[in-house]
Amino acid sequence: MPRIAVIGGTGAVGNVTLRLLRERGHHDVRVFASARSAGREIEGLTVEEATPDALAAAGVDVALFSVGTSASRELVPHAVRGGAVAIDKSSAYRLEPGIPLVVPEVNGGRALEHDGIVANPNCCTIPLTCALKPLHDAVGLARVRVSTYQSVSGAGAKRMEELRAEPVDDHDLRMDWTWDGDETDEESKIRAEARKILELPDLPISATTVRVPVLVGHAESVWIETEEPLSAGQATELLAHAPGVRLVEVPSPGAAAQTDQVLVGRIREDRAAERNGLVLFLACDNLVKGAALNAIQIAELVLSRVAA
Amino acid sequence: MPRIAVIGGTGAVGNVTLRLLRERGHHDVRVFASARSAGREIEGLTVEEATPDALAAAGVDVALFSVGTSASRELVPHAVRGGAVAIDKSSAYRLEPGIPLVVPEVNGGRALEHDGIVANPNCCTIPLTCALKPLHDAVGLARVRVSTYQSVSGAGAKRMEELRAEPVDDHDLRMDWTWDGDETDEESKIRAEARKILELPDLPISATTVRVPVLVGHAESVWIETEEPLSAGQATELLAHAPGVRLVEVPSPGAAAQTDQVLVGRIREDRAAERNGLVLFLACDNLVKGAALNAIQIAELVLSRVAA
Repeated sequence: MPRIAVIGGTGAVGNVTLRLLRERGHHDVRVFASARSAGREIEGLTVEEATPDALAAAGVDVALFSVGTSASRELVPHAVRGGAVAIDKSSAYRLEPGIPLVVPEVNGGRALEHDGIVANPNCCTIPLTCALKPLHDAVGLARVRVSTYQSVSGAGAKRMEELRAEPVDDHDLRMDWTWDGDETDEESKIRAEARKILELPDLPISATTVRVPVLVGHAESVWIETEEPLSAGQATELLAHAPGVRLVEVPSPGAAAQTDQVLVGRIREDRAAERNGLVLFLACDNLVKGAALNAIQIAELVLSRVAA
Repeated sequence: MPRIAVIGGTGAVGNVTLRLLRERGHHDVRVFASARSAGREIEGLTVEEATPDALAAAGVDVALFSVGTSASRELVPHAVRGGAVAIDKSSAYRLEPGIPLVVPEVNGGRALEHDGIVANPNCCTIPLTCALKPLHDAVGLARVRVSTYQSVSGAGAKRMEELRAEPVDDHDLRMDWTWDGDETDEESKIRAEARKILELPDLPISATTVRVPVLVGHAESVWIETEEPLSAGQATELLAHAPGVRLVEVPSPGAAAQTDQVLVGRIREDRAAERNGLVLFLACDNLVKGAALNAIQIAELVLSRVAA
């Protein structure tokens, strides 16, 4: 039975991580969080304080981190020092050379090349690469454009409570990210991470990221140009057999909530493209496949090597 | 003092039409609606039943229609028979050859070429063409892609009440339009109407339309390729001087609500484009500039000819 630690277990993603671990039969689990939450009970477990020494001494095989980027930078090395493989959901290590950035259905083999840390991608990059990978393998990606519809749970449990408390008349779209030049840092993350995961360092890709007043579930409107021609029917056939993907007529966050799959639909030819253009729409549960589930799938890949 | 009739004055757009007419100094106004609403008071006016004979005998200069497509088809000809110029907000006449489809800031001159009917475009097409026109005039449009974020008020007052009554946990994205082949009819309208208004019958343009759980205000994420190069700075300069447009850092439906302008921002170069690519984001009040105000502006153009 693998020993697993969840760090940041009291947050929106941490909660889902603990539930999914239980549902997938992982029962040797310890949960860590900040001093403020230490002593609380969650999913029948007592929260321990996530100090460097506690993590180094935890004696676990895998440490799943769902904390902010600066906390990850501080704590992850100590879990690794203690012998754990750290699966980190923050952006701290995603683009670091030599650290695998993994979506199991897309580049699962890379998870086994770790040196103690595997990074979990951004919640928009995960479903996007699940949809792009089978198309790229078949005909090559030439360029990608994405508009996102991201739920507030991506900004944390506190923002969910704020949306619940806000009068519906005040519900608005927001772009609540940090600027990175003329883009949001979310937009530059999607580009850089998709390039790394797909191993296409020069893929032309641009995103516009938008927060919508939905609690759970991210959606993306995607324009794709491919190197070789691919009809909408052929793309549909490829995606029907793509791991982690489920075809539906109209994907929506509500339909994706609590499911493991990336919902893909509205696949059609792009009438605006000069050549080889496709349009599609996708949705996934940003807390499940967009975060907690993807990290657990990475952990299971890593543990399967330990067991073998 | 021009005599104006508002048909469909009890709906979401009709209400805004009556308010804007008052604010703009139009005081000789009659309001018509279905038999169900006849006799009600609205903005100090008694609602009259919109029958063919009542409209033919109304003796008005302009009749502003905010009713469904089938009601427009039935009633508009009778208002015209009675001597009024009909400004129709439904899709009934928009694509009919010889009937002007007008955004005053974009093709206002066409309003004067009417033969009794002027059509008002779709609530997404209006702000889109306001942003595209100055770019086209400067460097030519090569292709356009749009993802929409449309508020529920675009689907009528009843849908607004439903959203207000719905638990926030159920708020979702929807695509609540009719299918037109592999597109929604909203998507094909945006293409066909933008082509007609911009007088670019072959403009490559594709849209993905999405309803978001926001009460008022539509937003659009837009990718543009131009024939000649145009930097983000040059595009910003052009849009800063475009009629009906106001530049803001981050446009949102909330910021656009109750304003007359199309808010445009996030103007940047498209890193995914092969050449001459721009990205921008826009928002406008779909009930004001997206519908009622645009129709009143058309009426004022038509009336200025009558007065002259």
